[in-house]
Amino acid sequence: MHIYCLLFDDYETLDLMGPVEFLFRIPHAQLHYVSHTGGAISSRQGFSVATQRLNTLPPDSVLLVPGGQGTRALVGNPDFIRALSDWAQQAKYCLCVCTGSALLAKTGLLDGLAATSNKKALSWVAGVNHQVCWQTSARWTVSGKFYTSSGVSAGMDMALAFIADCFGNNLAESIADHAEYIRNRCASHDPFAATAILPEHAV
Amino acid sequence: MHIYCLLFDDYETLDLMGPVEFLFRIPHAQLHYVSHTGGAISSRQGFSVATQRLNTLPPDSVLLVPGGQGTRALVGNPDFIRALSDWAQQAKYCLCVCTGSALLAKTGLLDGLAATSNKKALSWVAGVNHQVCWQTSARWTVSGKFYTSSGVSAGMDMALAFIADCFGNNLAESIADHAEYIRNRCASHDPFAATAILPEHAV
Repeated sequence: MHIYCLLFDDYETLDLMGPVEFLFRIPHAQLHYVSHTGGAISSRQGFSVATQRLNTLPPDSVLLVPGGQGTRALVGNPDFIRALSDWAQQAKYCLCVCTGSALLAKTGLLDGLAATSNKKALSWVAGVNHQVCWQTSARWTVSGKFYTSSGVSAGMDMALAFIADCFGNNLAESIADHAEYIRNRCASHDPFAATAILPEHAV
Repeated sequence: MHIYCLLFDDYETLDLMGPVEFLFRIPHAQLHYVSHTGGAISSRQGFSVATQRLNTLPPDSVLLVPGGQGTRALVGNPDFIRALSDWAQQAKYCLCVCTGSALLAKTGLLDGLAATSNKKALSWVAGVNHQVCWQTSARWTVSGKFYTSSGVSAGMDMALAFIADCFGNNLAESIADHAEYIRNRCASHDPFAATAILPEHAV
Protein backbone atom coordinates (compact mmCIF):
# COMPACT_ATOMS: atom_id res chain seq x y z
CA MET A 1 0.00 0.00 0.00
CA HIS A 2 1.36 3.39 -1.01
CA ILE A 3 0.68 6.16 1.50
CA TYR A 4 1.20 9.74 0.39
CA CYS A 5 1.90 12.14 3.26
CA LEU A 6 1.09 15.63 1.99
CA LEU A 7 3.27 18.38 3.43
CA PHE A 8 2.80 22.13 3.06
CA ASP A 9 4.48 25.04 4.81
CA ASP A 10 3.22 25.60 8.36
CA TYR A 11 1.55 22.20 8.69
CA GLU A 12 1.20 21.10 12.33
CA THR A 13 3.86 18.52 13.17
CA LEU A 14 1.89 15.98 15.17
CA ASP A 15 -1.04 16.09 12.70
CA LEU A 16 1.28 14.39 10.25
CA MET A 17 3.86 12.58 12.35
CA GLY A 18 1.40 10.86 14.71
CA PRO A 19 -0.36 8.99 11.87
CA VAL A 20 3.01 8.45 10.12
CA GLU A 21 4.27 6.57 13.19
CA PHE A 22 1.38 4.10 13.00
CA LEU A 23 0.73 3.86 9.24
CA PHE A 24 4.42 2.97 8.74
CA ARG A 25 3.80 -0.30 10.55
CA ILE A 26 1.17 -1.60 8.14
CA PRO A 27 2.87 -4.60 6.50
CA HIS A 28 4.29 -3.68 3.08
CA ALA A 29 3.22 -0.04 3.42
CA GLN A 30 5.41 2.45 1.63
CA LEU A 31 5.29 6.03 2.85
CA HIS A 32 5.99 8.92 0.47
CA TYR A 33 6.61 12.48 1.66
CA VAL A 34 5.15 14.76 -0.97
CA SER A 35 4.02 18.31 -1.61
CA HIS A 36 2.38 20.43 -4.31
CA THR A 37 5.65 22.15 -5.16
CA GLY A 38 8.25 19.56 -4.20
CA GLY A 39 11.40 20.61 -2.33
CA ALA A 40 11.94 21.50 1.31
CA ILE A 41 8.81 22.09 3.38
CA SER A 42 8.81 23.59 6.89
CA SER A 43 6.47 22.52 9.64
CA ARG A 44 4.92 25.02 12.05
CA GLN A 45 7.53 23.74 14.52
CA GLY A 46 10.34 24.93 12.25
CA PHE A 47 12.05 21.86 10.82
CA SER A 48 12.46 21.26 7.13
CA VAL A 49 11.60 17.97 5.39
CA ALA A 50 12.66 17.04 1.85
CA THR A 51 9.59 16.25 -0.32
CA GLN A 52 8.87 14.97 -3.79
CA ARG A 53 6.42 16.83 -6.01
CA LEU A 54 3.13 14.94 -6.12
CA ASN A 55 1.59 14.45 -9.53
CA THR A 56 -0.77 11.49 -9.67
CA LEU A 57 -1.56 8.82 -7.08
CA PRO A 58 -1.40 5.20 -8.22
CA PRO A 59 -4.41 2.90 -7.62
CA ASP A 60 -5.06 1.69 -4.06
CA SER A 61 -3.13 4.52 -2.48
CA VAL A 62 -3.85 6.54 0.65
CA LEU A 63 -3.61 10.32 0.95
CA LEU A 64 -2.83 11.77 4.40
CA VAL A 65 -3.63 15.48 4.82
CA PRO A 66 -2.52 17.26 8.00
CA GLY A 67 -3.84 20.60 9.26
CA GLY A 68 -2.19 23.59 10.86
CA GLN A 69 -1.78 27.32 10.31
CA GLY A 70 -0.76 26.69 6.71
CA THR A 71 -4.32 25.69 5.82
CA ARG A 72 -5.49 29.33 6.24
CA ALA A 73 -3.57 30.40 3.15
CA LEU A 74 -4.13 27.19 1.18
CA VAL A 75 -7.95 27.32 1.20
CA GLY A 76 -7.54 30.48 -0.88
CA ASN A 77 -5.11 28.89 -3.34
CA PRO A 78 -7.18 27.55 -6.29
CA ASP A 79 -4.21 25.72 -7.85
CA PHE A 80 -3.58 23.78 -4.66
CA ILE A 81 -7.27 23.03 -4.08
CA ARG A 82 -7.68 21.79 -7.67
CA ALA A 83 -4.67 19.51 -7.27
CA LEU A 84 -5.95 18.27 -3.89
CA SER A 85 -9.32 17.50 -5.46
CA ASP A 86 -7.59 15.36 -8.10
CA TRP A 87 -5.43 13.54 -5.55
CA ALA A 88 -8.36 12.90 -3.19
CA GLN A 89 -10.41 11.46 -6.06
CA GLN A 90 -7.50 9.26 -7.18
CA ALA A 91 -6.88 7.96 -3.64
CA LYS A 92 -8.58 4.82 -2.38
CA TYR A 93 -8.72 6.46 1.05
CA CYS A 94 -8.19 10.04 2.14
CA LEU A 95 -7.34 10.77 5.80
CA CYS A 96 -7.55 14.37 7.05
CA VAL A 97 -6.29 15.44 10.46
CA CYS A 98 -7.44 18.57 12.33
CA THR A 99 -7.90 21.52 9.95
CA GLY A 100 -6.79 19.35 7.04
CA SER A 101 -10.52 18.73 6.64
CA ALA A 102 -10.97 22.43 5.75
CA LEU A 103 -8.77 21.84 2.70
CA LEU A 104 -10.74 18.78 1.64
CA ALA A 105 -14.04 20.59 2.34
CA LYS A 106 -12.95 23.36 -0.02
CA THR A 107 -12.77 20.83 -2.89
CA GLY A 108 -16.49 20.05 -2.43
CA LEU A 109 -15.80 16.33 -2.04
CA LEU A 110 -17.16 16.36 1.54
CA ASP A 111 -20.47 18.02 0.59
CA GLY A 112 -23.35 16.22 2.33
CA LEU A 113 -20.96 14.01 4.28
CA ALA A 114 -20.16 13.88 7.99
CA ALA A 115 -16.76 15.33 8.88
CA THR A 116 -15.00 16.92 11.83
CA SER A 117 -11.97 19.01 12.75
CA ASN A 118 -10.21 20.64 15.68
CA LYS A 119 -13.01 21.84 17.95
CA LYS A 120 -11.29 25.16 18.64
CA ALA A 121 -11.07 25.84 14.89
CA LEU A 122 -14.45 24.38 13.91
CA SER A 123 -16.14 27.72 13.46
CA TRP A 124 -13.55 28.72 10.83
CA VAL A 125 -13.48 25.27 9.25
CA ALA A 126 -17.27 25.12 8.92
CA GLY A 127 -17.20 28.58 7.34
CA VAL A 128 -15.05 27.21 4.51
CA ASN A 129 -17.97 25.07 3.33
CA HIS A 130 -21.42 24.98 4.90
CA GLN A 131 -22.50 21.99 2.79
CA VAL A 132 -20.49 19.58 4.94
CA CYS A 133 -22.26 17.91 7.90
CA TRP A 134 -19.77 19.13 10.50
CA GLN A 135 -19.76 17.07 13.70
CA THR A 136 -19.16 19.04 16.89
CA SER A 137 -18.65 15.89 18.95
CA ALA A 138 -16.54 13.22 17.27
CA ARG A 139 -12.97 12.05 17.82
CA TRP A 140 -13.02 11.08 14.16
CA THR A 141 -15.52 10.40 11.35
CA VAL A 142 -15.70 7.91 8.48
CA SER A 143 -17.76 8.81 5.40
CA GLY A 144 -17.05 6.27 2.70
CA LYS A 145 -13.41 6.65 1.77
CA PHE A 146 -12.99 9.91 3.70
CA TYR A 147 -11.70 9.86 7.27
CA THR A 148 -11.50 13.13 9.23
CA SER A 149 -10.24 13.61 12.77
CA SER A 150 -10.55 16.13 15.52
CA GLY A 151 -7.52 18.21 16.56
CA VAL A 152 -3.84 17.26 16.29
CA SER A 153 -3.57 14.22 18.62
CA ALA A 154 -6.87 12.78 17.39
CA GLY A 155 -5.15 11.91 14.12
CA MET A 156 -3.39 9.07 15.94
CA ASP A 157 -6.67 7.51 17.07
CA MET A 158 -8.08 7.95 13.56
CA ALA A 159 -5.03 6.33 11.96
CA LEU A 160 -5.40 3.30 14.26
CA ALA A 161 -9.14 3.14 13.46
CA PHE A 162 -8.29 3.21 9.76
CA ILE A 163 -5.82 0.37 10.26
CA ALA A 164 -8.43 -1.59 12.23
CA ASP A 165 -11.05 -1.03 9.51
CA CYS A 166 -8.77 -2.10 6.66
CA PHE A 167 -6.50 -4.69 8.24
CA GLY A 168 -8.28 -5.85 11.40
CA ASN A 169 -8.25 -4.66 14.98
CA ASN A 170 -5.49 -7.06 15.99
CA LEU A 171 -3.01 -5.17 13.83
CA ALA A 172 -4.16 -1.81 15.20
CA GLU A 173 -3.80 -3.08 18.78
CA SER A 174 -0.38 -4.50 18.07
CA ILE A 175 0.83 -1.24 16.54
CA ALA A 176 -0.55 0.82 19.44
CA ASP A 177 1.06 -1.57 21.91
CA HIS A 178 4.42 -1.37 20.17
CA ALA A 179 4.35 2.41 20.55
CA GLU A 180 2.96 2.17 24.11
CA TYR A 181 0.08 4.33 22.90
CA ILE A 182 -3.01 4.63 25.11
CA ARG A 183 -5.61 4.43 22.40
CA ASN A 184 -9.06 6.02 22.22
CA ARG A 185 -11.00 3.27 20.42
CA CYS A 186 -14.34 5.04 20.23
CA ALA A 187 -15.06 7.61 17.52
CA SER A 188 -17.90 9.11 19.54
CA HIS A 189 -15.78 9.61 22.67
CA ASP A 190 -14.63 13.21 22.25
CA PRO A 191 -13.38 14.76 25.49
CA PHE A 192 -12.82 18.09 23.73
CA ALA A 193 -16.29 18.48 22.23
CA ALA A 194 -17.57 20.57 25.11
CA THR A 195 -15.10 23.36 24.35
CA ALA A 196 -16.41 23.78 20.82
CA ILE A 197 -17.79 27.06 19.56
CA LEU A 198 -20.81 25.72 17.74
CA PRO A 199 -21.59 27.35 14.44
CA GLU A 200 -25.32 27.28 13.65
CA HIS A 201 -24.88 25.06 10.63
CA ALA A 202 -22.87 22.43 12.46
CA VAL A 203 -24.48 19.35 13.96
CA MET B 1 14.61 28.66 26.44
CA HIS B 2 16.67 26.91 23.78
CA ILE B 3 15.63 23.32 23.12
CA TYR B 4 17.98 21.12 21.14
CA CYS B 5 16.25 18.22 19.36
CA LEU B 6 18.94 15.62 18.64
CA LEU B 7 18.40 13.67 15.43
CA PHE B 8 20.31 10.61 14.24
CA ASP B 9 19.64 8.20 11.41
CA ASP B 10 16.86 5.70 12.19
CA TYR B 11 15.47 7.62 15.15
CA GLU B 12 11.80 6.79 15.80
CA THR B 13 9.58 9.59 14.50
CA LEU B 14 7.06 9.98 17.32
CA ASP B 15 9.80 9.78 19.99
CA LEU B 16 10.96 13.15 18.71
CA MET B 17 7.92 14.73 17.10
CA GLY B 18 5.49 14.11 19.98
CA PRO B 19 7.58 16.13 22.46
CA VAL B 20 8.41 18.68 19.72
CA GLU B 21 4.68 19.38 19.30
CA PHE B 22 4.32 20.29 22.97
CA LEU B 23 7.72 21.86 23.78
CA PHE B 24 7.23 24.27 20.88
CA ARG B 25 4.36 25.87 22.77
CA ILE B 26 6.45 26.90 25.78
CA PRO B 27 6.45 30.72 25.61
CA HIS B 28 9.67 32.02 24.06
CA ALA B 29 10.98 28.51 23.43
CA GLN B 30 13.26 28.15 20.44
CA LEU B 31 13.63 24.69 18.96
CA HIS B 32 16.81 23.68 17.16
CA TYR B 33 17.09 20.54 15.04
CA VAL B 34 20.61 19.25 15.45
CA SER B 35 22.79 16.20 14.96
CA HIS B 36 26.34 15.01 15.60
CA THR B 37 27.28 15.30 11.94
CA GLY B 38 24.95 18.02 10.67
CA GLY B 39 23.19 17.65 7.34
CA ALA B 40 20.17 15.56 6.33
CA ILE B 41 19.05 12.93 8.84
CA SER B 42 16.50 10.19 8.06
CA SER B 43 13.95 8.93 10.54
CA ARG B 44 13.04 5.26 10.78
CA GLN B 45 9.89 6.26 8.89
CA GLY B 46 11.96 7.42 5.94
CA PHE B 47 11.74 11.20 5.76
CA SER B 48 14.75 13.46 5.78
CA VAL B 49 15.13 16.51 8.03
CA ALA B 50 17.78 19.21 7.61
CA THR B 51 19.90 19.56 10.78
CA GLN B 52 22.64 21.81 12.11
CA ARG B 53 25.78 20.27 13.57
CA LEU B 54 25.63 20.51 17.35
CA ASN B 55 28.77 21.75 19.06
CA THR B 56 28.09 23.25 22.47
CA LEU B 57 24.80 23.97 24.26
CA PRO B 58 24.36 27.45 25.73
CA PRO B 59 23.37 27.83 29.42
CA ASP B 60 19.76 27.02 30.40
CA SER B 61 19.16 24.82 27.38
CA VAL B 62 17.27 21.54 27.05
CA LEU B 63 18.49 18.46 25.20
CA LEU B 64 15.84 16.13 23.75
CA VAL B 65 17.07 12.63 22.84
CA PRO B 66 14.74 10.26 20.95
CA GLY B 67 15.17 6.50 20.67
CA GLY B 68 14.67 4.06 17.85
CA GLN B 69 16.60 1.45 15.89
CA GLY B 70 19.44 3.92 15.36
CA THR B 71 20.39 3.67 19.04
CA ARG B 72 21.68 0.10 18.50
CA ALA B 73 24.58 1.35 16.41
CA LEU B 74 25.16 4.55 18.36
CA VAL B 75 25.79 2.90 21.75
CA GLY B 76 28.87 1.41 20.08
CA ASN B 77 30.06 4.74 18.66
CA PRO B 78 32.52 6.26 21.19
CA ASP B 79 32.72 9.62 19.38
CA PHE B 80 28.96 10.03 19.53
CA ILE B 81 28.74 8.92 23.17
CA ARG B 82 31.53 11.30 24.19
CA ALA B 83 29.76 14.18 22.45
CA LEU B 84 26.43 13.20 24.02
CA SER B 85 28.08 13.14 27.45
CA ASP B 86 29.32 16.71 26.91
CA TRP B 87 25.94 17.95 25.66
CA ALA B 88 24.03 16.26 28.49
CA GLN B 89 26.36 17.83 31.06
CA GLN B 90 26.01 21.26 29.42
CA ALA B 91 22.19 21.03 29.31
CA LYS B 92 20.08 22.34 32.16
CA TYR B 93 17.66 19.48 31.46
CA CYS B 94 18.03 16.33 29.39
CA LEU B 95 14.89 14.51 28.19
CA CYS B 96 15.25 10.98 26.79
CA VAL B 97 12.40 9.15 25.07
CA CYS B 98 12.17 5.36 24.69
CA THR B 99 15.58 3.80 23.92
CA GLY B 100 17.13 7.27 23.96
CA SER B 101 17.85 6.44 27.60
CA ALA B 102 20.21 3.67 26.43
CA LEU B 103 22.37 6.34 24.80
CA LEU B 104 22.42 8.47 27.95
CA ALA B 105 23.03 5.38 30.10
CA LYS B 106 26.11 4.61 28.01
CA THR B 107 27.66 7.94 29.03
CA GLY B 108 27.51 6.89 32.70
CA LEU B 109 25.55 9.99 33.68
CA LEU B 110 22.56 7.89 34.79
CA ASP B 111 24.61 5.62 37.08
CA GLY B 112 22.78 5.14 40.38
CA LEU B 113 19.75 7.06 39.13
CA ALA B 114 16.21 5.88 38.33
CA ALA B 115 15.46 5.70 34.61
CA THR B 116 13.15 3.85 32.24
CA SER B 117 12.69 3.00 28.57
CA ASN B 118 10.42 1.12 26.18
CA LYS B 119 9.31 -1.96 28.10
CA LYS B 120 9.76 -4.24 25.11
CA ALA B 121 13.37 -3.08 24.75
CA LEU B 122 14.20 -2.83 28.44
CA SER B 123 16.21 -6.03 28.54
CA TRP B 124 18.56 -4.65 25.88
CA VAL B 125 18.60 -1.14 27.34
CA ALA B 126 19.45 -2.41 30.84
CA GLY B 127 22.25 -4.49 29.35
CA VAL B 128 23.90 -1.30 28.08
CA ASN B 129 24.59 -0.24 31.68
CA HIS B 130 23.70 -2.24 34.78
CA GLN B 131 24.56 0.64 37.13
CA VAL B 132 21.31 2.47 36.27
CA CYS B 133 18.26 1.82 38.49
CA TRP B 134 16.00 0.72 35.62
CA GLN B 135 12.30 1.01 36.40
CA THR B 136 10.13 -1.72 34.90
CA SER B 137 6.91 0.13 35.73
CA ALA B 138 7.01 3.86 35.04
CA ARG B 139 5.47 6.02 32.32
CA TRP B 140 8.40 8.36 32.91
CA THR B 141 11.06 9.11 35.55
CA VAL B 142 12.67 12.28 36.86
CA SER B 143 16.12 12.05 38.44
CA GLY B 144 17.43 15.55 39.00
CA LYS B 145 17.84 17.12 35.58
CA PHE B 146 17.35 13.82 33.73
CA TYR B 147 13.89 12.84 32.46
CA THR B 148 13.41 9.45 30.81
CA SER B 149 10.22 8.04 29.34
CA SER B 150 8.79 4.68 28.45
CA GLY B 151 8.22 3.76 24.77
CA VAL B 152 7.49 6.15 21.89
CA SER B 153 4.12 7.71 22.88
CA ALA B 154 5.19 8.07 26.52
CA GLY B 155 7.50 10.87 25.45
CA MET B 156 4.44 13.09 25.03
CA ASP B 157 3.31 12.54 28.62
CA MET B 158 6.89 13.13 29.82
CA ALA B 159 7.17 16.37 27.82
CA LEU B 160 3.96 17.66 29.39
CA ALA B 161 5.20 16.63 32.85
CA PHE B 162 8.44 18.51 32.18
CA ILE B 163 6.45 21.58 31.16
CA ALA B 164 4.30 21.25 34.30
CA ASP B 165 7.40 20.94 36.52
CA CYS B 166 9.17 23.94 35.02
CA PHE B 167 6.33 26.27 34.04
CA GLY B 168 3.30 25.11 36.04
CA ASN B 169 0.55 22.62 35.38
CA ASN B 170 -1.78 25.23 33.89
CA LEU B 171 0.54 25.65 30.92
CA ALA B 172 0.85 21.88 30.46
CA GLU B 173 -2.94 21.49 30.57
CA SER B 174 -3.43 24.33 28.12
CA ILE B 175 -0.93 22.85 25.67
CA ALA B 176 -2.50 19.38 25.92
CA ASP B 177 -5.95 20.89 25.43
CA HIS B 178 -4.85 22.84 22.37
CA ALA B 179 -3.64 19.59 20.78
CA GLU B 180 -6.71 17.69 22.02
CA TYR B 181 -4.31 15.31 23.71
CA ILE B 182 -5.68 12.86 26.29
CA ARG B 183 -2.89 13.15 28.83
CA ASN B 184 -1.53 10.55 31.25
CA ARG B 185 -0.72 12.78 34.24
CA CYS B 186 0.70 10.07 36.50
CA ALA B 187 4.29 8.89 36.12
CA SER B 188 3.54 5.65 37.97
CA HIS B 189 0.57 4.75 35.74
CA ASP B 190 2.22 2.49 33.17
CA PRO B 191 -0.29 0.33 31.26
CA PHE B 192 2.55 -1.36 29.38
CA ALA B 193 4.60 -2.42 32.40
CA ALA B 194 3.08 -5.89 32.54
CA THR B 195 4.49 -6.80 29.16
CA ALA B 196 8.05 -6.14 30.26
CA ILE B 197 10.70 -8.82 30.12
CA LEU B 198 12.29 -8.16 33.47
CA PRO B 199 16.04 -8.36 33.58
CA GLU B 200 17.33 -9.50 36.99
CA HIS B 201 19.09 -6.23 37.71
CA ALA B 202 16.07 -4.06 36.98
CA VAL B 203 13.74 -2.89 39.71
